[in-house]
Amino acid sequence: MPSSGSGEKAVLDLLADVAAYSISQADERYLAFPDTGDSVAAVLATIVGTFLNQNLIAFDRSAPAGSVIEEQVIRWLRDLVGFPPAGPPTLGTLGGMWSSGGNMSNHIAVLVALSTKWPEIRRSGLFGLERRPVLILASGVEHFSYLGAAQALGLGAESLVWAQAGSDFRTDAAALAATLEALPDDVEPFMVVGIAGNCRTTAIDDLSAIADIAKRSGLWFHVDACHGGSLLFSDKLSPALAGIERADSVSLDPHKGLFTPYSCSYALFKNPADLARMARYPDRLADADMLDLGLVTPFYGSRGFESLRLWALIHHLGREGIGALVEARQTTFQELQAVVSSHRSLRMIASSDFYRCAFVFLPVSVRAAAAQALTVEGGAARVAAIVSEYTARCCDLLYRSGQLVFDIFTLRDLNNALGCGSDVRLQVMGMAVGHPGVSDSLSSHIQRMLDAAEEALAAEMNQRLLESSVGNAGAQVALGPAGW
Amino acid sequence: MPSSGSGEKAVLDLLADVAAYSISQADERYLAFPDTGDSVAAVLATIVGTFLNQNLIAFDRSAPAGSVIEEQVIRWLRDLVGFPPAGPPTLGTLGGMWSSGGNMSNHIAVLVALSTKWPEIRRSGLFGLERRPVLILASGVEHFSYLGAAQALGLGAESLVWAQAGSDFRTDAAALAATLEALPDDVEPFMVVGIAGNCRTTAIDDLSAIADIAKRSGLWFHVDACHGGSLLFSDKLSPALAGIERADSVSLDPHKGLFTPYSCSYALFKNPADLARMARYPDRLADADMLDLGLVTPFYGSRGFESLRLWALIHHLGREGIGALVEARQTTFQELQAVVSSHRSLRMIASSDFYRCAFVFLPVSVRAAAAQALTVEGGAARVAAIVSEYTARCCDLLYRSGQLVFDIFTLRDLNNALGCGSDVRLQVMGMAVGHPGVSDSLSSHIQRMLDAAEEALAAEMNQRLLESSVGNAGAQVALGPAGW
Repeated sequence: MPSSGSGEKAVLDLLADVAAYSISQADERYLAFPDTGDSVAAVLATIVGTFLNQNLIAFDRSAPAGSVIEEQVIRWLRDLVGFPPAGPPTLGTLGGMWSSGGNMSNHIAVLVALSTKWPEIRRSGLFGLERRPVLILASGVEHFSYLGAAQALGLGAESLVWAQAGSDFRTDAAALAATLEALPDDVEPFMVVGIAGNCRTTAIDDLSAIADIAKRSGLWFHVDACHGGSLLFSDKLSPALAGIERADSVSLDPHKGLFTPYSCSYALFKNPADLARMARYPDRLADADMLDLGLVTPFYGSRGFESLRLWALIHHLGREGIGALVEARQTTFQELQAVVSSHRSLRMIASSDFYRCAFVFLPVSVRAAAAQALTVEGGAARVAAIVSEYTARCCDLLYRSGQLVFDIFTLRDLNNALGCGSDVRLQVMGMAVGHPGVSDSLSSHIQRMLDAAEEALAAEMNQRLLESSVGNAGAQVALGPAGW
Repeated sequence: MPSSGSGEKAVLDLLADVAAYSISQADERYLAFPDTGDSVAAVLATIVGTFLNQNLIAFDRSAPAGSVIEEQVIRWLRDLVGFPPAGPPTLGTLGGMWSSGGNMSNHIAVLVALSTKWPEIRRSGLFGLERRPVLILASGVEHFSYLGAAQALGLGAESLVWAQAGSDFRTDAAALAATLEALPDDVEPFMVVGIAGNCRTTAIDDLSAIADIAKRSGLWFHVDACHGGSLLFSDKLSPALAGIERADSVSLDPHKGLFTPYSCSYALFKNPADLARMARYPDRLADADMLDLGLVTPFYGSRGFESLRLWALIHHLGREGIGALVEARQTTFQELQAVVSSHRSLRMIASSDFYRCAFVFLPVSVRAAAAQALTVEGGAARVAAIVSEYTARCCDLLYRSGQLVFDIFTLRDLNNALGCGSDVRLQVMGMAVGHPGVSDSLSSHIQRMLDAAEEALAAEMNQRLLESSVGNAGAQVALGPAGW
């Protein structure tokens, strides 16, 4: 740590340096994450909020306006999801809370679901339970937050029971029901997860079908709408999430695909009493003059005025204005998806009509060699490894050019689009479009960049595939950077 | 939710309204919390960080500069605490992480301590443990985060074992040792908490004595330095925290008393391998080119560039500059404490030389009546209730004047300063001084405000005390707002 300060001028220079080595997610050539964070109103509100520096732990002496605004944002989001209107603003009827991100919102949902079924956990812990609580979710399309929650909340990874996902990268309701039927006697299910836009392909589950299963089995139904939640702002697009109103809990992530700077996520609970069970002073829950949010927000005490940004965005554009942006973004995504899916260097592995798709680098000029390699024993694994390696290299080459950014991650090829089997995990590029509109030249820019990548990599890749037909020249599939 | 947007001008007006109904913690008449958040460099960095909108989940494609800066902040803070230098910057050697607040940092410390002793929890949960894990801490000076952590992490409140605090509002090391000795056979201790500045009176534990006990018993030693951590910047003041370098984990809270806007907290781990055990992909921990922080930060995935503000503050002022501010703040606190402790309307219940003290409203003119009431059977409870009630009314009267803000909370009168017994819980006013300097007129302003409160309340309070000598006229003690 520096002993002496370097003064104001030096700090300005340092911050300029930091900016120079930062990523602009708001740039239209950034297509890795949908987190543009560039709503004028939300950015302005974040700046105002910095100066206000309210502490959302309490109303009096901390955040009088801030507490009311957060309560209002939660009320609006409940309305958006289709949850019943909360009662008068008391701690007992809030039915939702801010959190730092979707990972955390999902942790909170698991915690509240657990504590609703077994309220004694708060007093005596998990030790007295007769059977292991388990939550059921689809494998291959899951977000890491459920494993994280199981590990952190004392359940352990063994409390996750995996159902087979469909080849459409959605939770397969029939497989989910079969998994529930087949549970061993020594576990007790408490929660089923439905995914409104998975984090890799943004495929949206049939939430109504999952709700049916959950309700029939008396299980908590959690909907992870961290990606898909933005569709709820559009009358045209929201039907894709039909059934979300039957959830017991919903996680939303406005900093992901809703133009809102970090950190802005919410966990909502249909029955406000479920969240209220977390209260530090249950006797204050019904107080008409009590809105100290810190009393009912697990994991959070003193914290900032993060809800101001979403509140300002909603005031600025209204539900209809935001919905129009979300619809425009979807159109933009579909246009750009057509560009990548038709480019001769790529093969689509999974797509959605929403804002994310996944593809590999597989130029037309190497496909004969790849097909040949697949005919050799062990060829599928080798082809998958080589395709993964060159996909990663292509993505890296684009990224380091500073001119085009796709995401890179691992994906099970559930639909066997590559032909190496549906169990194989591939490194894939992901394109996520956060921008409602882009310039006319972006499509041709993407094409030129992909042309150049093909030029740089295809011949070598072809050679590797040819060699792999006669011996094991494949690399191991490495994991993607943050493993989403 | 509004259907239509109200446009930019309306948003500006709304934000102005929000500001008008917000609290200014940076105002020198605000003496409830030390969270001034008014470092010029930290505020500037927060604004710059809003525009950069980096996602600290990963290095490439998300936060290249941001990841390095957070790693550097963690390295600096480790150095400040006296932890060994971390190795080369890899995920496995980080030894610390950002969190949203002290509550969360303490949760993370408990989680890591648990998982260090019983690594199998991450796989199989708490179910296989033979005995209930318990953590030991002093009662009456505790922060609510430990109860919250026990409830959230599956341990339950029964996993907290309370030791008697000393009359000096510090953890009593002898009592702590005796508590450990007396533990029943069916529990297994794993963690001892030392408090470097409790949240009510900022009394600082004898950390060396607690470290001795923890080390002798082979227990994890956690130091909660959310309040006291700022003293580490001053060579003159840091000896008060001697022994902190022997901790296994330390929580620091720069948004609390270090001039940094929300949210800015850190959990540090002496042995980086303990935090690294949380890794999602353990095989990436040693990679020299891998700094995807989201792989080793339990509870956090996508999140903002919160570390930039503390980094900028440290660059701006350096350790010495910050230390000088902390020393100046301490002097300011002592001056203002002299004002309240000598005012004839107040009685000090607990003080520190640091930045917080606690007192009740007990004007000289009511003390005879209070003494008389204490002689009657049941008088202690009645006097405590009446003093609590008028203390709350005094605090409220000051607050609603908009001219002076003290905190209000409940406190066990461990030193029996009021004479109602050391078990009694009182409503007390708290004064916290976050400002390094204040204007010359503040002391007389405080005196005038207290004079006016006495004028408004003393006669009525005296009457209530006189009545309580002849019957039960006492009110119940209500809990303070957020129950810290």
